[in-house]
Amino acid sequence: MVEFYDTTLRDGSQAEGVAFSVEDKLIIIDELDKLGIRYIEGGYPGSNPKDIEFFKRAKDMQLDTAVIVPFGSTRYPTYSPDTDPNLSALLETGARIVTIFGKSWRIHATDVLRVTAEENLELIKSSVSYLVENGREVIYDAEHFFDGYADDPEYALETLRAATESGAKCLVLCDTNGGRLPLEIQEGVKAALNAFSLPIGIHTHNDAGMGAANAVLAVQVGANHIQGTFNGYGERCGNANLASIIPTVQLKLGIQCISDEQLQRITDVSRLISELANLPHDERQAYVGRSAFAHKGGLHIDAIRKNRLTYEHIEPEKVGNSQRILVSDQSGRGTIMKKIEKEYPDLDKNSPQVLELFNSLKQAEHDGYQYEAAEASFELLTHKVFNGYESFFQQLGFRVIIEKFTDHSMRSEATVKVTTPDKSTTHTAADGDGPVNALDTALRKALEQFYPELHQVRLMDYKVRVLDTKAGTGSKVRVLIEAGDGVNSWRTVGVSENIISASFDALIESFEYKLYKDNK
Amino acid sequence: MVEFYDTTLRDGSQAEGVAFSVEDKLIIIDELDKLGIRYIEGGYPGSNPKDIEFFKRAKDMQLDTAVIVPFGSTRYPTYSPDTDPNLSALLETGARIVTIFGKSWRIHATDVLRVTAEENLELIKSSVSYLVENGREVIYDAEHFFDGYADDPEYALETLRAATESGAKCLVLCDTNGGRLPLEIQEGVKAALNAFSLPIGIHTHNDAGMGAANAVLAVQVGANHIQGTFNGYGERCGNANLASIIPTVQLKLGIQCISDEQLQRITDVSRLISELANLPHDERQAYVGRSAFAHKGGLHIDAIRKNRLTYEHIEPEKVGNSQRILVSDQSGRGTIMKKIEKEYPDLDKNSPQVLELFNSLKQAEHDGYQYEAAEASFELLTHKVFNGYESFFQQLGFRVIIEKFTDHSMRSEATVKVTTPDKSTTHTAADGDGPVNALDTALRKALEQFYPELHQVRLMDYKVRVLDTKAGTGSKVRVLIEAGDGVNSWRTVGVSENIISASFDALIESFEYKLYKDNK
Repeated sequence: MVEFYDTTLRDGSQAEGVAFSVEDKLIIIDELDKLGIRYIEGGYPGSNPKDIEFFKRAKDMQLDTAVIVPFGSTRYPTYSPDTDPNLSALLETGARIVTIFGKSWRIHATDVLRVTAEENLELIKSSVSYLVENGREVIYDAEHFFDGYADDPEYALETLRAATESGAKCLVLCDTNGGRLPLEIQEGVKAALNAFSLPIGIHTHNDAGMGAANAVLAVQVGANHIQGTFNGYGERCGNANLASIIPTVQLKLGIQCISDEQLQRITDVSRLISELANLPHDERQAYVGRSAFAHKGGLHIDAIRKNRLTYEHIEPEKVGNSQRILVSDQSGRGTIMKKIEKEYPDLDKNSPQVLELFNSLKQAEHDGYQYEAAEASFELLTHKVFNGYESFFQQLGFRVIIEKFTDHSMRSEATVKVTTPDKSTTHTAADGDGPVNALDTALRKALEQFYPELHQVRLMDYKVRVLDTKAGTGSKVRVLIEAGDGVNSWRTVGVSENIISASFDALIESFEYKLYKDNK
Repeated sequence: MVEFYDTTLRDGSQAEGVAFSVEDKLIIIDELDKLGIRYIEGGYPGSNPKDIEFFKRAKDMQLDTAVIVPFGSTRYPTYSPDTDPNLSALLETGARIVTIFGKSWRIHATDVLRVTAEENLELIKSSVSYLVENGREVIYDAEHFFDGYADDPEYALETLRAATESGAKCLVLCDTNGGRLPLEIQEGVKAALNAFSLPIGIHTHNDAGMGAANAVLAVQVGANHIQGTFNGYGERCGNANLASIIPTVQLKLGIQCISDEQLQRITDVSRLISELANLPHDERQAYVGRSAFAHKGGLHIDAIRKNRLTYEHIEPEKVGNSQRILVSDQSGRGTIMKKIEKEYPDLDKNSPQVLELFNSLKQAEHDGYQYEAAEASFELLTHKVFNGYESFFQQLGFRVIIEKFTDHSMRSEATVKVTTPDKSTTHTAADGDGPVNALDTALRKALEQFYPELHQVRLMDYKVRVLDTKAGTGSKVRVLIEAGDGVNSWRTVGVSENIISASFDALIESFEYKLYKDNK
């Protein structure tokens, strides 16, 4: 059995650009609990006094498996345990289980705390004892354990002994600087296992790109508590990523820690946390990334059609992810067939229609389109080629006027002209927050009288990529738009040297797709 | 000694969203050669016939250490070696060293190639022999070696024997599906080292997040050839990342493969390749990421001031990266002082000017500005606050009209109004390829009569990032522009809900900066 200890809310929020609100934190705790995480480190009340308030709110949560744990340090050298503000803050949270870190590396004692190595041992002892005497269970994080062990193994183990003898319930060995290699981690874990009978935990970072490997190798020699963060958020290069470690421990080491159903939630949890952190989800993330089971090379696609095992290390469904077949200039007609076989099962690979679609795609890619992230545009294109698809409306043109005045005020006005199925021409105008918003508003005005369902469509994401940046301000751009109607979401693409026109094209396709789907 | 084999241009371009032009490829080859990479896999001519053309062009390059290698497979079962189009394509490139992959896993022989396990051995033998007979040195990639070894170790070694006896010069063991764990990799590498006297290489993927660890552990038991890609680009979760493996091998395993000066280039090479791939550079990337040595926590910042070693696993300068102190309540003014101390050595940290700059920066960052990638805008802002800087010109406003007509033709017209130092107002108009280009042209018309040196300014890069994508088409955007005058280059930033206005602001600052620098 391995217990997972999540520190996304504490160590994860040390990451550049990451900050969680109290609301975010409560949502994340709820999700981690449903996932079966054992411990959730909620914050560092000693360094952030408003965290005490957070812990009081969090205490009322109904959790199935998780315990919320506050984080702190051994006492400051200038205080006694009972006057130390950091230890008091830990007690004040009211949490039954608390985590504190202490120093295992001589230079941290001497250069940072400015105490002797012996005084540091005393800091550890008195702090752990004080918390235990106050009825708390203490998880002891041995900060920089592996650096300390490389520098002076006996002293590093001495610090663990200080925590053990004072009543700690678990010793967590930390590679705080994230630079240690897997075999060094194994050696340090073995040394601690030999010396103490307490459970040994592991806390690793990614500064050499090995956080997950280091954690898993520690488990292979006997550690049974893993600390990490979701999506690997954390200071510098980040912490070991629980979103990849949990599936590895469960599916590859064969240690069942959470149920199969819980494991199937992990992709969604990872994505939710990146949404709340307001960071793009790392598409290449192991197990849970959008690209983790995406196939682009023609040979690979051909092979997985024959046997999925040939290019998939696990079944993506086990972690709630799914297989994706990408369309690109490397993929041949086989790929396209695989993408369309569900909708058009009877089409022959060598039919003139498939060839026409293939050629249309080649041309579009040459022009700068990419359909990998715009499956709705791909579907519309396919439908046009195969069924002589007729659009629900035709754009006859637009005009946008953007003005900035001497007083720095701005105005964006768009006019849009479309024909609708009854062959009448509608000509509308609107202002907006910027030109694309003005076009969006004018287009809705023109269409909603005919298609009231477009009122449900919301633009959820808008991305601009400049292609061939060498052409400076005259560069071609590709615009991706994600739209949704509360039930489904879909993505479309537009390309042009004119950023406004590219945006308008993507916008039009997102409306068109909604109508196509609803009328199918 | 370990030799590095880069496959960014081949396996890397299997990544979702990655496609390199021939020009991009030549630039990357040049940079990898300067970095001291031994082999550069240039492409797969058998699957992409235009790669033959590329290899012909690449052959004329003057390279110091690198050899450009084409990639292919063992012959197709339905052809003889001398009629196989894939082997012919390899020979046709004219390359002296070629890489081919063959199957090591029974299910790939039976389910994908649809031959017997014995026939697969014959495919390997006849293909390697044919290339050797034609005067080529053959690097043999044993695809899925570790999966094959787990399934049937004897058969997997049999496939290596087939390649060895046919004259291969190096056996590269591949974890093609990326799902094997470090100790399994070590076991497979040891088995191959025991069985054969050829050099053993390693090629790993990131599907369990362990590509770099697996490669380094293979080296620790005796492999001496590492295949990977820059930034870990590659199919699904990507390949092992050479940008992190090279520093680990060099600085932590102590195996000197490239010079210290070459290693200092690696951060720039990693960033350049992401630019050419048109992907954002992964900020958390080990060693070379922008955040790799960025410190945010107050305690950590305090500690690294006392001794950098306390929270940095290597000196960032060794890989051409640098320490960054992130602006936060604890570290704000210290950071700014560090940034401006060269230009303003006499300023006091507590002076009202520094406080004013600090507050201006806070406000600007709150509004969505970021100066890390726009040092010219930062310098102008500092100069404004400290010296009451007067601009060389003032914008009085602009108007842009973008029209799309029924015949799909487009027109972008901009008018610009500026005042120049003699207080006269200039009002100009221009057409352009899109609205930003039209503004650029109109602004030059207005300014070049006063400042002919602006004629030298070229826009070199133009990036758009949508902030807070949840606001859909009304989102705020940040525009970064890189400009140059043939001697220097500089970067400026603009932010607005109006993409055109944000672009115009960044454009204006890029002209302003040129004038400021020239007149300083």
